[in-house]
Amino acid sequence: MRINAHRLHESLRQLARIGATPGGGVTRLALSSEDRSARDLLRRWMEEASLRVRVDDFGNITGRRAGSESGKAVLMASHIDTVRRGGCYDGAYGVLAALEVMRTLNDAGVTTRRPLELVNWTNEEGVRFEPAMLASGAVAGRFTPEYVYGRTDRDGVTFGDELERIGYKGDRDNRPGPVAAYLELHVEQGPVLEDAGIPVGVVDGIVGITWSEITIEGRADHAGPSPMPLRRDALVAAARLIAGVDDIARAIEGAVGTVGRITAEPNVINTIPGKVTMSVDLRHPDSATLDRLVAGLERLASDIAALTGVTVAVNRFWTSEPTPFAAEIVDAVETAAAEMGISTRRFWSGAGHDAKYMQDVAPSAMIFARSINGLSHCEQEYSTPEDLEAGANVLLRAALGLAGIEGERTSHKRG
Amino acid sequence: MRINAHRLHESLRQLARIGATPGGGVTRLALSSEDRSARDLLRRWMEEASLRVRVDDFGNITGRRAGSESGKAVLMASHIDTVRRGGCYDGAYGVLAALEVMRTLNDAGVTTRRPLELVNWTNEEGVRFEPAMLASGAVAGRFTPEYVYGRTDRDGVTFGDELERIGYKGDRDNRPGPVAAYLELHVEQGPVLEDAGIPVGVVDGIVGITWSEITIEGRADHAGPSPMPLRRDALVAAARLIAGVDDIARAIEGAVGTVGRITAEPNVINTIPGKVTMSVDLRHPDSATLDRLVAGLERLASDIAALTGVTVAVNRFWTSEPTPFAAEIVDAVETAAAEMGISTRRFWSGAGHDAKYMQDVAPSAMIFARSINGLSHCEQEYSTPEDLEAGANVLLRAALGLAGIEGERTSHKRG
Repeated sequence: MRINAHRLHESLRQLARIGATPGGGVTRLALSSEDRSARDLLRRWMEEASLRVRVDDFGNITGRRAGSESGKAVLMASHIDTVRRGGCYDGAYGVLAALEVMRTLNDAGVTTRRPLELVNWTNEEGVRFEPAMLASGAVAGRFTPEYVYGRTDRDGVTFGDELERIGYKGDRDNRPGPVAAYLELHVEQGPVLEDAGIPVGVVDGIVGITWSEITIEGRADHAGPSPMPLRRDALVAAARLIAGVDDIARAIEGAVGTVGRITAEPNVINTIPGKVTMSVDLRHPDSATLDRLVAGLERLASDIAALTGVTVAVNRFWTSEPTPFAAEIVDAVETAAAEMGISTRRFWSGAGHDAKYMQDVAPSAMIFARSINGLSHCEQEYSTPEDLEAGANVLLRAALGLAGIEGERTSHKRG
Repeated sequence: MRINAHRLHESLRQLARIGATPGGGVTRLALSSEDRSARDLLRRWMEEASLRVRVDDFGNITGRRAGSESGKAVLMASHIDTVRRGGCYDGAYGVLAALEVMRTLNDAGVTTRRPLELVNWTNEEGVRFEPAMLASGAVAGRFTPEYVYGRTDRDGVTFGDELERIGYKGDRDNRPGPVAAYLELHVEQGPVLEDAGIPVGVVDGIVGITWSEITIEGRADHAGPSPMPLRRDALVAAARLIAGVDDIARAIEGAVGTVGRITAEPNVINTIPGKVTMSVDLRHPDSATLDRLVAGLERLASDIAALTGVTVAVNRFWTSEPTPFAAEIVDAVETAAAEMGISTRRFWSGAGHDAKYMQDVAPSAMIFARSINGLSHCEQEYSTPEDLEAGANVLLRAALGLAGIEGERTSHKRG
């Protein structure tokens, strides 16, 4: 059994019209009117595919395809909200590939043993309402409904008010699940698969992330009359720290380290910067190694302070612990791809996804489709039709394996 | 003969009231109403000191004290305009110490052989009307009157209109000079004298300055899903360049190098910077060495580009050639200080001053008074009363030496 690639691409194309940008991307912020239009279209498609559609108290839309057994379902999920001027595939691909799986099973007249559910999560991106992955986090018990409803966008509008305005405030009883297994298909958003020449990734888990704010205080002097040995240049100290973060991350297998944001003061051409603030983002699949990375950053900061006469403060203000996915679900995905003759590579996701919270609820895993140039969260985001098809076929096969086909043993338990 | 320190400080205190800021500094932008009030006070003081006051076509105010001979004058000059929230001494000190020299000569009943002129230059700072040192440059023939009058501030108001508004548009025939020698006393604005424990500096010249704009283009990727070896991080490349500029400047005697301004894009915590723009300010007393410094910067940029996979463009967009002062005037200042028992150190000014342009017109030199913590262009700018007194006494003695006293040979030709 294979998905209908033409139908998948046509659905992707139609959904991408809602919130389309002149630059070829999409702006469809969570709970905006564009999100409502997209939800309406998705709901119509789900109903046309004979799914039983329900909307929960966070606006999550679930479409259920009954199995021969009742009880826990196999979920396939992602999101249709986007960042500003984002791409056509981030999120939408996972939702519409899951829809395509349902349509393909309908075409083939297959009944699975376990029920299948397609879930569209509300506000995955977190660009309109912080934090990201808000509704899956709430379903997993990380956030209370009051917290979720009270989140405000930059105009001061609340999540709760917008959810009611677009008509997607449903019932608590309509939350997804109960869940036997959770699968999330997504574009990679990184260059690993392209670099390796492989179409599909099997995701071992979501790395741990820790954010620190660095404040460097030196002395703002005239660039002219200040001989080099008498300077306390905050930006030179910052530069040595940025290079050091890069060195540390390169030295530890699987680690990444990024200084994304930097501000120098007074930031004029002929004054030595007296103050620099910058961010450090460190990621690793292992919690203890993440702590070691931060310790390395702190040692580096203190060495640079001692050598250059500036003060360097490191404030580790946020950490998201690593989330390894369930080995049996990751293996099921890998087996499914092998059975389809699709080559895969296993690696950790460097970015967060709803699957991070869902792993708390049920055994979970993710599937990645190769991205071109590793680009996402921009209009240039792209994956080839062939790779999108391959990823969707892996989702189909994995879902079938986990749900089982009426009268068969579940495929992932075969030989 | 010694200046009256009390009177000098009292004048400094009174002038600093005009445009005084809550933080203890002064905002007295060129040709502002505050500048007019300060000019009015200065003109009154000059007239009270029996100087013959004239105002030229750029608003420069000259007060002349006749000598026993007519002909070329010895000029003592600086400026009373300030930066925003600047200090009380930058500029004002040089003007009021020159006034104090005139008053001291009056008190002593001394007539010099050459005339003495006190000059207040218009718009030295260049913060309201760019470029800096506009009026001295115009007197030296670097800028045409049309260019000067057409300069606009950030509200679009022209120099010419503001000069007329405050009533200080005078006559071309009233420009300073003809000039036998030019002396400019100023606070150091750097830490050299304080570091050396010496009150007064004798300035060899104004260093050459060259400004370059650096543009680094890498690739903006998600901070998470991008393994270190596959990144093209513009900020890491920038960091290595900033550290390299620091290293290069430290390696060459007398050089300084500063990255004062940096902007990273998109400048968010979880995205690898795809683009960085930054400035490089390089200074050295020798023109060929300045070119060598820029060549070193360009080599470094190309090495970093090759090693990190980013592109680095270096655009050297402005150069001010080094200006060595006239040896005989520098020597006269040094001799004057020695005769007063005031210890001095000779060094190059890292910052521009009106003396840079006046050296084109007549043999020139500068005197620096020690700054505390090297601070200037800020409200914390400070020099001790003792150091300000010492600097003014060196100005007095040097001016007397260069102008000669009626019936004596000029002092700098003695011994």
